[in-house]
Amino acid sequence: MPDHSSDWRHLRIAPLDRAAEREIRARIDGKAKPPGSLGRVEELAMRLALIWQPQVPRADTALLLVFAGDHGLTAEGVSQYPSFVTAAMVRTFLAGKASANAFAKATSVALKVVDAGVAAELNDHPDLIAAKIGRGTANAAREPAMSRDDAQTALAGGLRIAAHAIEQGADVLAIGEMGIGNTASAALLVHRLAPAPLETCIGPGAGQDEAGMARKHAALRLASERSAATEPLEVLAEFGGFEIAMMAGAVLGAAHKRRPVVIDGFIASSAALVAIRLHPAAGDFCLFAHRSAERGHDVLLGALQAAPLLDLGLRLGEGTGALLAIPIVRAAARLVTDVADLNDVLAGTSR
Amino acid sequence: MPDHSSDWRHLRIAPLDRAAEREIRARIDGKAKPPGSLGRVEELAMRLALIWQPQVPRADTALLLVFAGDHGLTAEGVSQYPSFVTAAMVRTFLAGKASANAFAKATSVALKVVDAGVAAELNDHPDLIAAKIGRGTANAAREPAMSRDDAQTALAGGLRIAAHAIEQGADVLAIGEMGIGNTASAALLVHRLAPAPLETCIGPGAGQDEAGMARKHAALRLASERSAATEPLEVLAEFGGFEIAMMAGAVLGAAHKRRPVVIDGFIASSAALVAIRLHPAAGDFCLFAHRSAERGHDVLLGALQAAPLLDLGLRLGEGTGALLAIPIVRAAARLVTDVADLNDVLAGTSR
Repeated sequence: MPDHSSDWRHLRIAPLDRAAEREIRARIDGKAKPPGSLGRVEELAMRLALIWQPQVPRADTALLLVFAGDHGLTAEGVSQYPSFVTAAMVRTFLAGKASANAFAKATSVALKVVDAGVAAELNDHPDLIAAKIGRGTANAAREPAMSRDDAQTALAGGLRIAAHAIEQGADVLAIGEMGIGNTASAALLVHRLAPAPLETCIGPGAGQDEAGMARKHAALRLASERSAATEPLEVLAEFGGFEIAMMAGAVLGAAHKRRPVVIDGFIASSAALVAIRLHPAAGDFCLFAHRSAERGHDVLLGALQAAPLLDLGLRLGEGTGALLAIPIVRAAARLVTDVADLNDVLAGTSR
Repeated sequence: MPDHSSDWRHLRIAPLDRAAEREIRARIDGKAKPPGSLGRVEELAMRLALIWQPQVPRADTALLLVFAGDHGLTAEGVSQYPSFVTAAMVRTFLAGKASANAFAKATSVALKVVDAGVAAELNDHPDLIAAKIGRGTANAAREPAMSRDDAQTALAGGLRIAAHAIEQGADVLAIGEMGIGNTASAALLVHRLAPAPLETCIGPGAGQDEAGMARKHAALRLASERSAATEPLEVLAEFGGFEIAMMAGAVLGAAHKRRPVVIDGFIASSAALVAIRLHPAAGDFCLFAHRSAERGHDVLLGALQAAPLLDLGLRLGEGTGALLAIPIVRAAARLVTDVADLNDVLAGTSR
């Protein structure tokens, strides 16, 4: 892999040009429906129109990138599932038999898996993007999850993968993840970057009993006490997640290419938070799909003043929530491009 | 049209057989994901599995039926739009240029329009089902909106259309509507059938200023004082809506054929309420798509103890909200059919 370790830092991400907002609002208000009657879909249509201008928005060709990685924090017993489940689930994605595959079929979205740092060898597969930074992170409770260099390489890799997908024709990207232990890593990132008290960021993840929650809290307190980092790249390296770092890079890549990126749940949102702290303008391109049932998500969404589209009590990850939001994104784009003006309807000239 | 005016009454609609619930729950819990981690999608998967048993659920082939009709109540100034907009919008649907068409394309759902009672002649069109009961209802503020016979014919017609669509291969139906003045009609139905105080059922519909709201309240008070009906067929005839009556019939048709029907917003929900009051077991087949911004919807949903899937501030109708829920229904069906068991994933036998 060529060295892109500094790309992400010198990236130019211009915020949306809001000068066109009034004109776009008039166009949407002129559609054949009572103004405002499509609620949040109209807000979304506005955002897509601003992102895509001077072109009109499109969202037919959508791609979910599922970033997978393992976590040294699992050594502290933060998850009820063993690390090898990460690789087993990656193989399940590639076999087309995970929930994300089912939801991707249901929503006509393509799916690719990115090996960001799975602690196992994975066979080549047309739907697998091999981009392993390492075989799992180090245990963030005891030492930095990854080096600063690895964090930069991961960001650059995610950026490159997202940019390539857009160059290949994706109108909209979605990010999701698989990584046993990654709610623990995400909790630390949110704690430090929202910022918010550590306890408010910790939830049961895939499911934990009382003893497991006690272990998780203890491990994350250790990690938090070990490093006082607040600078986003440093926080990312300390508390890690190779898949989280690559997702953060993918958000930057989508923003750089001026395409929307649909953010799945708690962990994908923690990656968006990293990206936004690195490049605040990236937030303009993030569409938060759903309100996760995982505890820390509300804290994170509040810090970003983000109102997700769906609230279905999901807490699986894999991009499942992002997939369910994509038809809404498509509908919003088509509101702009496909719907007649009320004046034409009333004049009988729309047909 | 053959006389089906009594079909709906002697219909046999068996409630769901809940005996299979435990077995289905075990099947869903055994999937390769933490139990419960797909939240409301799992509840939906359970419902679909119960509806479809002994077959497995499917939702690929979906059809939205948009029922259109005019309302005599418009003579009281209950809507800010004139009645002729109903026909103009029907022509816009048939030209593929309404919001519902855009959303239907975005979600890969077929769309047909049913002329239940538009006060205009409509040309033949392959996507138009001609089933006109009359050229708009009578003014329910002054007299019954329709005769009891017309109400029965409309119910039977809707039932027949839904049953036919399912026989032709629709896995899931959705119902939406177009009818200037129909939030006024729906408010009366909800008031009498929820039941709930009239005022709590009245909202601005497509949009009304203060004077318009005063006219709407006055007209609906007149209607409510004119008839004390509480029996569902009588309430339907008194307060009408040909499109609402046909939608109620469509709900019965879906339930009779044991297929789910996705209910759009306030007006479609008022039709579902009529159907459920006629045949309570029909409620098992109704999937409420979204929480409308129209005031009376919360009252109605509360009366049916229904928790809709989406909350996007929509208040357009046309089936737009129902369309956005269909990908979630598809995902729920595929959760049952497509996702590997956790045991197979852990044993490495799922691929």
